Amino acid sequence: MRKKINIVLDANIFINPSSFSYFGKTKEEALNNFLEKIKKGKEVNCFIPPSVYKELGNFINLEKVSLKQLLLINKKPPSQYEMLVPAIFIYEFIEDMRGRINKGLRIAEKFTRQSKEEKKIDELIKTLRNEYRQALREGIIDSKEDFDLLLLSKEIKGMLATSDKGLIKWASKLGISCILPEELKELIE
Amino acid sequence: MRKKINIVLDANIFINPSSFSYFGKTKEEALNNFLEKIKKGKEVNCFIPPSVYKELGNFINLEKVSLKQLLLINKKPPSQYEMLVPAIFIYEFIEDMRGRINKGLRIAEKFTRQSKEEKKIDELIKTLRNEYRQALREGIIDSKEDFDLLLLSKEIKGMLATSDKGLIKWASKLGISCILPEELKELIE
Repeated sequence: MRKKINIVLDANIFINPSSFSYFGKTKEEALNNFLEKIKKGKEVNCFIPPSVYKELGNFINLEKVSLKQLLLINKKPPSQYEMLVPAIFIYEFIEDMRGRINKGLRIAEKFTRQSKEEKKIDELIKTLRNEYRQALREGIIDSKEDFDLLLLSKEIKGMLATSDKGLIKWASKLGISCILPEELKELIE
Repeated sequence: MRKKINIVLDANIFINPSSFSYFGKTKEEALNNFLEKIKKGKEVNCFIPPSVYKELGNFINLEKVSLKQLLLINKKPPSQYEMLVPAIFIYEFIEDMRGRINKGLRIAEKFTRQSKEEKKIDELIKTLRNEYRQALREGIIDSKEDFDLLLLSKEIKGMLATSDKGLIKWASKLGISCILPEELKELIE
């Protein structure tokens, strides 16, 4: 008998159109189809941190999905008071943040200067927000949800199913295998 | 025989006037006096991460301090590839950073708006830098040096001698005792 594979599900698998389209036409249909497959196949055990499940509920009408089917996904929080992380991970995180914080200040300066010359303040603020968020948010673990996914994958020695480039980058530092939505689809077929 | 106490030295002990004045009139004199005391007393073992020693050298003319005396401070890097840190520490760090990043954006927006009305751009940029740095830097571990101090203190089960409020806050989460410069002075008397 083949051993079951533990999969930790990122919400983006069923939220991003480029991901959920591997499983169905709508978010709800995609999740339903996915659950139907794993119920039959029994090849994988699925897990999701409660924080990420909540995120999923913000984007998907979970009432349209059978509760019994949803129970196939184990809502397990990582053991955040017990798990240990190598110090080198924190060094890299601090280093990364430091560079981003400096970049954020350069962006703030640029827009303060531009504001002197250009007219439309609303347009300027909008561009500022985009640039700032891109510099300080993209590719970083910037939420409890992200770290929950990494830590849970580590704890249960699972594969992380995600399409988030930042998560994939940091997962690789912790020895966590990642699978993309298209790979997940093949796995459960 | 009393067991020796391990002390990890933050550079600010000999750089900040409000700290080094407990040991001498100038930075160099303070360091010299300190080393003289620990040579005689032999009550404490002193450690410093190489990164922090380098920082010290940027502010103090170490050539004015006897090399033999300086050898009383063990320049030990923490074992960053071996040490483990509780995951909860990273959760708190991410949470803290997230709040600061949002605050940074609010500051950037404020100054972009102000720039429309106020005249002196140089003055504005200066205030922006101060506010931004205060919001994103103060009270956080924002450098390799800071984390080296925490990790080394943890590794050698030492007390961290520092006057940095951010370090003291994060040390308390890791179970590290901190001593202030005035306490350090008493300890070596």
